[in-house]
Amino acid sequence: MRPDVVRPSNRAADQLRDIRLTRDYTRHAEGSVLVEFGDTKVLCNASVEAGVPRWLRGKNQGWITAEYGMLPRATHSRSGREAARGQQGGRTLEIQRLIGRSLRAAVNLKKLGEFTITVDCDVIQADGGTRTASITGGCVALVDAIRYLQREKKIKSDPFKQMVSAVSVGIYKGVPVLDLDYPEDSKADTDLNVVMTEGGELIEVQGTAEAGAFSRSELNAMLDLAEKAGSELLEHQREALGIRG
Amino acid sequence: MRPDVVRPSNRAADQLRDIRLTRDYTRHAEGSVLVEFGDTKVLCNASVEAGVPRWLRGKNQGWITAEYGMLPRATHSRSGREAARGQQGGRTLEIQRLIGRSLRAAVNLKKLGEFTITVDCDVIQADGGTRTASITGGCVALVDAIRYLQREKKIKSDPFKQMVSAVSVGIYKGVPVLDLDYPEDSKADTDLNVVMTEGGELIEVQGTAEAGAFSRSELNAMLDLAEKAGSELLEHQREALGIRG
Amino acid sequence: MRPDVVRPSNRAADQLRDIRLTRDYTRHAEGSVLVEFGDTKVLCNASVEAGVPRWLRGKNQGWITAEYGMLPRATHSRSGREAARGQQGGRTLEIQRLIGRSLRAAVNLKKLGEFTITVDCDVIQADGGTRTASITGGCVALVDAIRYLQREKKIKSDPFKQMVSAVSVGIYKGVPVLDLDYPEDSKADTDLNVVMTEGGELIEVQGTAEAGAFSRSELNAMLDLAEKAGSELLEHQREALGIRG
Amino acid sequence: MRPDVVRPSNRAADQLRDIRLTRDYTRHAEGSVLVEFGDTKVLCNASVEAGVPRWLRGKNQGWITAEYGMLPRATHSRSGREAARGQQGGRTLEIQRLIGRSLRAAVNLKKLGEFTITVDCDVIQADGGTRTASITGGCVALVDAIRYLQREKKIKSDPFKQMVSAVSVGIYKGVPVLDLDYPEDSKADTDLNVVMTEGGELIEVQGTAEAGAFSRSELNAMLDLAEKAGSELLEHQREALGIRG
Amino acid sequence: MRPDVVRPSNRAADQLRDIRLTRDYTRHAEGSVLVEFGDTKVLCNASVEAGVPRWLRGKNQGWITAEYGMLPRATHSRSGREAARGQQGGRTLEIQRLIGRSLRAAVNLKKLGEFTITVDCDVIQADGGTRTASITGGCVALVDAIRYLQREKKIKSDPFKQMVSAVSVGIYKGVPVLDLDYPEDSKADTDLNVVMTEGGELIEVQGTAEAGAFSRSELNAMLDLAEKAGSELLEHQREALGIRG
Amino acid sequence: MRPDVVRPSNRAADQLRDIRLTRDYTRHAEGSVLVEFGDTKVLCNASVEAGVPRWLRGKNQGWITAEYGMLPRATHSRSGREAARGQQGGRTLEIQRLIGRSLRAAVNLKKLGEFTITVDCDVIQADGGTRTASITGGCVALVDAIRYLQREKKIKSDPFKQMVSAVSVGIYKGVPVLDLDYPEDSKADTDLNVVMTEGGELIEVQGTAEAGAFSRSELNAMLDLAEKAGSELLEHQREALGIRG
Repeated sequence: MRPDVVRPSNRAADQLRDIRLTRDYTRHAEGSVLVEFGDTKVLCNASVEAGVPRWLRGKNQGWITAEYGMLPRATHSRSGREAARGQQGGRTLEIQRLIGRSLRAAVNLKKLGEFTITVDCDVIQADGGTRTASITGGCVALVDAIRYLQREKKIKSDPFKQMVSAVSVGIYKGVPVLDLDYPEDSKADTDLNVVMTEGGELIEVQGTAEAGAFSRSELNAMLDLAEKAGSELLEHQREALGIRG
Repeated sequence: MRPDVVRPSNRAADQLRDIRLTRDYTRHAEGSVLVEFGDTKVLCNASVEAGVPRWLRGKNQGWITAEYGMLPRATHSRSGREAARGQQGGRTLEIQRLIGRSLRAAVNLKKLGEFTITVDCDVIQADGGTRTASITGGCVALVDAIRYLQREKKIKSDPFKQMVSAVSVGIYKGVPVLDLDYPEDSKADTDLNVVMTEGGELIEVQGTAEAGAFSRSELNAMLDLAEKAGSELLEHQREALGIRG
Repeated sequence: MRPDVVRPSNRAADQLRDIRLTRDYTRHAEGSVLVEFGDTKVLCNASVEAGVPRWLRGKNQGWITAEYGMLPRATHSRSGREAARGQQGGRTLEIQRLIGRSLRAAVNLKKLGEFTITVDCDVIQADGGTRTASITGGCVALVDAIRYLQREKKIKSDPFKQMVSAVSVGIYKGVPVLDLDYPEDSKADTDLNVVMTEGGELIEVQGTAEAGAFSRSELNAMLDLAEKAGSELLEHQREALGIRG
Repeated sequence: MRPDVVRPSNRAADQLRDIRLTRDYTRHAEGSVLVEFGDTKVLCNASVEAGVPRWLRGKNQGWITAEYGMLPRATHSRSGREAARGQQGGRTLEIQRLIGRSLRAAVNLKKLGEFTITVDCDVIQADGGTRTASITGGCVALVDAIRYLQREKKIKSDPFKQMVSAVSVGIYKGVPVLDLDYPEDSKADTDLNVVMTEGGELIEVQGTAEAGAFSRSELNAMLDLAEKAGSELLEHQREALGIRG
Repeated sequence: MRPDVVRPSNRAADQLRDIRLTRDYTRHAEGSVLVEFGDTKVLCNASVEAGVPRWLRGKNQGWITAEYGMLPRATHSRSGREAARGQQGGRTLEIQRLIGRSLRAAVNLKKLGEFTITVDCDVIQADGGTRTASITGGCVALVDAIRYLQREKKIKSDPFKQMVSAVSVGIYKGVPVLDLDYPEDSKADTDLNVVMTEGGELIEVQGTAEAGAFSRSELNAMLDLAEKAGSELLEHQREALGIRG
Repeated sequence: MRPDVVRPSNRAADQLRDIRLTRDYTRHAEGSVLVEFGDTKVLCNASVEAGVPRWLRGKNQGWITAEYGMLPRATHSRSGREAARGQQGGRTLEIQRLIGRSLRAAVNLKKLGEFTITVDCDVIQADGGTRTASITGGCVALVDAIRYLQREKKIKSDPFKQMVSAVSVGIYKGVPVLDLDYPEDSKADTDLNVVMTEGGELIEVQGTAEAGAFSRSELNAMLDLAEKAGSELLEHQREALGIRG
């Protein structure tokens, strides 16, 4: 990091915020995780329901889907409640599609049986990175929901394939930095969300030049940061779940 | 209480659940209170915005309104997200209208100036009594929002009139009981929601016979329980706000 | 009544408006009643349909539901047509839920067979008390619909349990008065809607302090007025249906 | 008429049903007319509002528009409430556009001033011909609304141009017949709605072959019937309004 | 035509614009026709799907329906996308209902089998007469869809009854003219859309007086023009389909 | 390319489909381009309107936005019309947000003046890559719209910054291939959409692992293909616009 660039949070360029994963945060959901990336707090509830969507019926497989929402005052100024406006906005739909695709990569749907697991990611407090926190926490909730299915003997084999985590990276004042909080995110030139497997491979890469454009070498520098963070996030997920590395 | 009737929670007939009011639960809202009535947890965020709805413009007064929502898995089984279904259900609208009317009774709108305070009540976990918890916690969040307006010198006089709280009462197995949790609520013959001022007067009374009907004397027995609970709830509100009784 | 308070209609404090119940007002519905509480006119059409909502199927019972609407110019100034605005407002949903719950108290659903009776209450002209008129007239239409089912031998036993009626009461200029018309309703401090069985027990009690609050003794004075009116409304219902008291 | 064809109502081929126009049917609207074409009953309320739609502002003219609705049980079997379904159907929109265009032909919008008159046509009971009854009765309500504007001295000159009426004609069992009721309408090969000026000229002609097709000579026979009926309808309108022919 | 009236396009009063019917315009639809009436260009795609709407099931017949849309910039100024506004406008619904009824007159639904053919008419460029172009081109696409069903041996008998075409006629500066383009249409006193069978009989006649009214003799003059155009349009349809007259 | 992998279209791994850009495809829009990537055909209409969205007013800048739609039968089987379903789907919103962000990178909004340019991308025929075709063609339409503003002297300086193009890349049977058509797209393991400036820098990178995951080296191989294609697409855009390279 260039000596003259200081992050608003004083973090090092490759430093994650404090990550916390609290399981069993609410008591009804089969998996319920409060994920915190610093001041970003998302409640991820995984719900198991028998049956699959119509277009999957009879195909002998399960389904994983996600929904995303922000409480109206999760942000600096109040934004209108989507239920009151009568529809989910484009940003919401885009994010929940991303979460759903990412979490499906964690599971072998063929081994899930005809169950649907819906992972609701509701943002209690937003400070940048809500979609990457949702994926990272949602995957832990998903594991708990699968364990529930196994404990209740509703499925026989283990459908879990691999842990999935996500992090944002960006170019802030010309420097690639990891895990942007809102003050950085709102000023970053480029914003990249990276979803990774526990093996370090890529599931989703979504990069946007908010201002100007970015080069191949900048992209690579950002991906390097994400790759390193992936290992750390995996550690947090395993620790929360009581899995030895 | 008849000796043969035991509440599922083993509480006495006139016993509230554990009440907790946690202020500053999130950091963006001008007032942010997590209210807990036992396992019922509602996040009440009060947001201050300059201006009033169109039909109040130029009338030299402010406005208080409320919105209510349930996270999809706040309940035993997942209920569809209202934003995804494209509209708020009748129960939601009925509850948020009740909360709004109740909180307006706490404030002299003429002294509020042309500000709107919106109190968002989002149910994190439901175990009966979400509307009464919302009013009780929402009033504390409202006080914090008014204090913010005063601290920021946006209003000169104090628009706060009186504290408002609410509690449910019902007839469970023939016995009037206070502050129903879900196991009681789902079996109660009659359900009464009572909204009260700090002086013990009534703001709203909504009684419904789920099965059969109820008599005037049963109504009075329920109101007696509510009256007593009103004083206790007021104590919790004052203590949370650091007000001496 | 205090000698200095005169009701806009010159009625005594405990005096109902002229009540009229006209059966067979339209010819297609199984029950069709025009109910008039003075200048408030509501057409209550009860429609019988085979089958029950999905969540009741196979439970060997019937269902009663209600829908409520106002013609756009039922009121002093035209209000937008809900069908054109694309949704029913909160007030409409709140009222139709109240009517539905009240009318279900009149019927033993287990004896209704797998039929749904929908009671449409459409306000032709509004002058206060449309929801209480709807319940009072809707119950008569419901009886006609049940008689139709019996006459057509679609059900064997009689599912009718008890007549249900409703009336509003309020505190107008400090005095409890019965059956508020619009000029009173718009100035009342407190408004109470009471739904009663033919035995004088309570089905629904919904009281709202529009300004200030109300005491237990005021509540009792209002309930006394409602109780007395219940007997009169029952007489009107019985007379319309040709039932001897 | 061929001797072997008998209309279900026993009417002659060129015979209208009983036409009734009752003014001041409700008390709030500036014009309120219940129009009856036999068993078809439509309440036509004309509402005057200051102002015009955005696209007409500043053009120094007024606007006439219409809305149409059916009470859910105006018909043989109950049809879903459009407000509850969340939108007006295609048939509804088609009919209200027709009514609006027809009524605009009655008025010189330039002389109306910046007022909007909305004519709500709500079908209380349907037995065929609801759109033609709506136009015929709506025009009388419109005249009353214009008279209100003149009486209140809100406009100076008289914007009324000409009376407008409408009637349906059809080919029933091969014979052209006037003013179809539902039993005829549901079996007619061809259905023609004709909107006419008091001078006998045409405003709208909408003919549909429900089965097969129709010839130019059949069209002319139907138009002959409509022309004759136009004079009769005009008489009814004038009589209701107290105008000497 | 009166010698002093010149059409903006310099066409004779009874002259159609250049008509072009291009089959197989896109490659997925069973019938795909680009129809051009001068500068009006509509893509008509006929899609075959197994099954019929719920209300036709088990009745041993097929169904033909149509949908209509305008690309947002098909017109002089951009109009909002209906999908973004959340509903189809009244004009759209009115037109697609007209197209559907017209095309059903071309087919014996009893011989179609339980198939639904949906004809999508999407306006690429508008210059007046989009609905009549849609019907004329849609009928050719429909024939191709039926031929597909026969070629694939999904139906045995031939459900095609007759070709259907449509044209607009109007009174422009007092003169009846054929096939109005936008400059004429926007100034015409009267606008008549005529849908005809190949035998010259009438399927739909929709005439509207945009200003003033029209007489029976004007109606006849317009129908004469339409009748003549019907033969020409039929020639174009047959030629496109390779049918000898 | 591995010798054993043959693309369905027989193209080389780094070979684009036939690219065609037809300007002035329709006559009303300020910029109107039909873009073809092989059998994928998208009509891109750029519309200029005075004014900017509310949240940009008074900021002395312009705005570029995009809307995307598919004709119902652009695809193998008919998909429901979004206007009829009452809302745009998540995929549609995601794509039009991508197109809008990408095209804004082509323009200096500060120099655009208070004009909004809306680029409507309507898919006439789909065969994979509709979003990348939309961006590539939309940018040409955007240039024409800007030229219109300059020609009409509505803006003084040139707001155009750089040409923007887009292409999809994927891993098909283990081999990185360029510009996927539908048969490849539906079977690809990984799908990457790349939006580039004329200088070869990146605007958007959106990669998704449909099955499994992808490595950093696979990502780089795909980006190499996209980079090369960017130059070719730029040539097509310049040629269409008559710009010498």
